[in-house]
Formats: sequence, structure tokens, C-alpha cells
Amino acid sequence: MTCRLCQSAVYSQAVTVPEKLERRYEGKAKKVYATRDPELYIVEYKDDATAFNAQKRGQISGKGAVNNAVSARLFELLEREGVETHFVKRLSEREQLVKAVTIIPLEVVVRPYAAGSFAARYGTDEGQKLTPTVLEWCLKSDALGDPPLNDDTALALGLASVGDLAKLRKLALRIGTLLAARFEGVNLKLIDFKLEFGHLGTGELVLADEISPDTCRLWDVQSGERLDKDRFRRDLGGVEDAYREVARRVLEES
Amino acid sequence: MTCRLCQSAVYSQAVTVPEKLERRYEGKAKKVYATRDPELYIVEYKDDATAFNAQKRGQISGKGAVNNAVSARLFELLEREGVETHFVKRLSEREQLVKAVTIIPLEVVVRPYAAGSFAARYGTDEGQKLTPTVLEWCLKSDALGDPPLNDDTALALGLASVGDLAKLRKLALRIGTLLAARFEGVNLKLIDFKLEFGHLGTGELVLADEISPDTCRLWDVQSGERLDKDRFRRDLGGVEDAYREVARRVLEES
Repeated sequence: MTCRLCQSAVYSQAVTVPEKLERRYEGKAKKVYATRDPELYIVEYKDDATAFNAQKRGQISGKGAVNNAVSARLFELLEREGVETHFVKRLSEREQLVKAVTIIPLEVVVRPYAAGSFAARYGTDEGQKLTPTVLEWCLKSDALGDPPLNDDTALALGLASVGDLAKLRKLALRIGTLLAARFEGVNLKLIDFKLEFGHLGTGELVLADEISPDTCRLWDVQSGERLDKDRFRRDLGGVEDAYREVARRVLEES
Repeated sequence: MTCRLCQSAVYSQAVTVPEKLERRYEGKAKKVYATRDPELYIVEYKDDATAFNAQKRGQISGKGAVNNAVSARLFELLEREGVETHFVKRLSEREQLVKAVTIIPLEVVVRPYAAGSFAARYGTDEGQKLTPTVLEWCLKSDALGDPPLNDDTALALGLASVGDLAKLRKLALRIGTLLAARFEGVNLKLIDFKLEFGHLGTGELVLADEISPDTCRLWDVQSGERLDKDRFRRDLGGVEDAYREVARRVLEES
């Protein structure tokens, strides 16, 4: 069996698909299920899309499959580079097996270039190079609209320790360098991206969540065309095609 | 002649009042005039009050006089403690002579306790102690609503250097300690405050702007009553009385 999306050999080996037990979490783009092994979860990627703190809702046909495949491939890359992640293996078109983590309630946004909420907030042009690369923490809270916060605030609200913040910053910037190089190899400019981290049962800090056109702004290097969720957010059309194009480039490159 | 506000001896000595020349700047609460000496400006404090990025406007009778007197007294205190400020001397009920500075376009907000926009943004209780004291930079931009920004962003937008940020942070926290102790002596709890800094012609960094119930949240230690601009922002009544009460306490204490 080969992958319908990328025709890769992902399914060519027999994989033991663990049984999905109760649903532990349902977010805007993914569901997370327990398995018989308390240290493993199954993530199921959905086609549901939301934007602007879920004020805009819709579906992007095939998104779940793209994000599952792209995330899996990029987690594998990061693991090869020594970055610990929650990723174990891709199980099916929409499912992957991951290590059970407790998510740190801080989104880590890395911005090599200005775009989106950053550009609006500070009145900069989109695509303006940021030197240094800007790292922002955002409080994971739908009710509060995921507000950005600085180091002092993260400490005062008890969201992380000084050591955690230093570790997260170093990891996020390293991941940014690795991802930017990987995307550049397929003519994609990594404008900005959002990461989430979590702790394993052992206390180890690992990269979690996903890395996909839902969580990265990716512009075609030549045309500047946006190949990410901004096509959905801004009603630019061609949303499904953009997601498929990212998958094609990321998955085809060996 | 004695001060109508505090009956202090501020006017008992003859002061040479420099001539006001052209207006250099008019803000929401103050006007700044050139003098014959290019290194000196005259600041005139107004009774005009605005809140929520000038969406709410009004007048607080006597505010200009209170803020001029309170600021002058607190700048004198800080100067005695070795903090360089733009303050030279109080000239009249509403005017003070200051050194000409180029204002750094970063507001420095120091928050020993959660309140106001911080409490709303992060869903905390007002009055909650923040450990560590939170220091926030805000971009001085009425058009953008003075958005908070982190160190990376201040650097990437070219608003300050790494050295400037370190110096501002150290200074702002020291000023916070000095002011909190001063206010505590007159039963006022310093909840948070906003500072602005500027560079003299010589390049020296000094504290500028004002320190008053417009720029500090001050709660009565016993009753918790708000004695600051929140009475205006939130239509709590007794605005003029609150400003006069702060002036009375700050100016009476020797």
C-alpha cells in the first residue's frame, strides 16, 4: 500500500496500528486518543479549519492528510538532527502515533519575517526581514485570544521557569534554522511559525503539536505566493491546492 | 507666595521664569514649549484627560496643577537618589522647566501588581502580586494603540539597542523600588506605573515625561480605594478628590 497523497513508501511496510481508545482532547484541527499504552497517544488530523480565534470556521478538503504527512516528515527530519519530538510514526492517512505529553500552555512563535498579527500590531510591512529573528510567547487560551506575553509575564503567571524559557528559546531558534533550510530547498520561504512543546512522563521536554501549512507561513520563493493557512484566513482561494503543493514539495524531496 | 495646592514654600523664593517660545509638542496631558536656551523646555500640564487611546476624553479640574506638583516632588526625590531626570524646577502652578530630550519611542510599564490592561489581557485578578515584577515595553504609537512588545521586537524594529534595553530595565526597576517606598510612606500602594525616557543632546539617558496619578495606579493601602486615573477611565466618581488626595499625601510628607 502506498500513500494516496505522496505515493511514498510510508505504507509499504506492515505497521501495527494500535487501537484507539477514549478521546483525550479535541482541538480545532486535531483529535487525540489514548491507546493501551499510557505513554502513547494517537493524533487524528481533521480537515476543519478555524482562524481569528475560531471566529472564522470552515473545511479544507484534504488538509488533515497533508498536515499529517508534512508534520510526520518534518518531525523525522528534526529527530535526525537531534531535536527530541513527540513523534513516533505515521499510522494512516490522517493518523500518527505520538508520545503522551503534557503540553506547556505557551505557544512559541518564531518570526524570521514580519507577517500576520505581528505586522498588524506594529505597523510593519509583511515580508520585512526581522533582525534578530523575533521569538514570541503566546498564552494558550482561546478565551483570551492567545495574547503574546514577555518573559517576565510568563514567569509571574507561573507558566514556565527561567530555565524552561531559556531552553525553549534555544530549541525554537534551532528548529527555525533547520526548518528554514529544509523549506528553502523546495523553494519555500519560512516567514513565521508556531511551535508547542510538552513534557513526557519522565519530565523530558519535547517538541509536540504539528508543523504544517496550518502552523507555518510559507511563501513561494520566486512568486511570493502564499502557500499556507493565510489563503483560508484571507479568502485568497486555492486553499486546497496550496496545501497539496506544500505536501508535494516537502514529501518529494528526499 | 505659597502654592495654592499644597501651601508649600515652592514659590517663596523668587524664581526667574524663562520666556515660553514656540510650542514644540502638544500631547494629551501636556504642552511642551521651547525657551531661549535650546537645552531647556517648559512643560505645561493640562487638565485634559483621555483614556483608552483617546477614545474617552474629558477634563479633570485641577489635574494639571496636581500632576505638575506631584511630578516635581517625585523627580526631586529620584534626583536625590542619583536617578538622572529631565527635571530642572517647578516654575508655576502648571509649569515646570525641564531639559530638552529626544524621547525614546518605548513606554516602560512596571507592574508590581496586576491591573488594567494586563489583568484583562491575561485574565488575572486586579491587585494580584506579580513575582517577578513585570516590566513591559509598549510602542509609543497612538495609531497602533501603544501595543506591548518584547525585547526581540524592540530590537528588530530598531527602537533600542541591547544595551539600551538593559539600562532601561535596570533604571525602571530601581525607580519602581524608590517610588513604591515613597508612596508606601503615605499609605499608597503603587500597583503599576508608566515611565518614558529620553536622550539629552549629550546622549545621556534620563527619565522624562511625568510621574503622577495619570501615569501611576495608586491604591489606598487600607481601603484599597483607587486614587488615580482609573476613577476617570471607569467613571468611578470623585476623580478630582482622588488627585487632590494624592497631592496632599505626596506633598505633605517631608
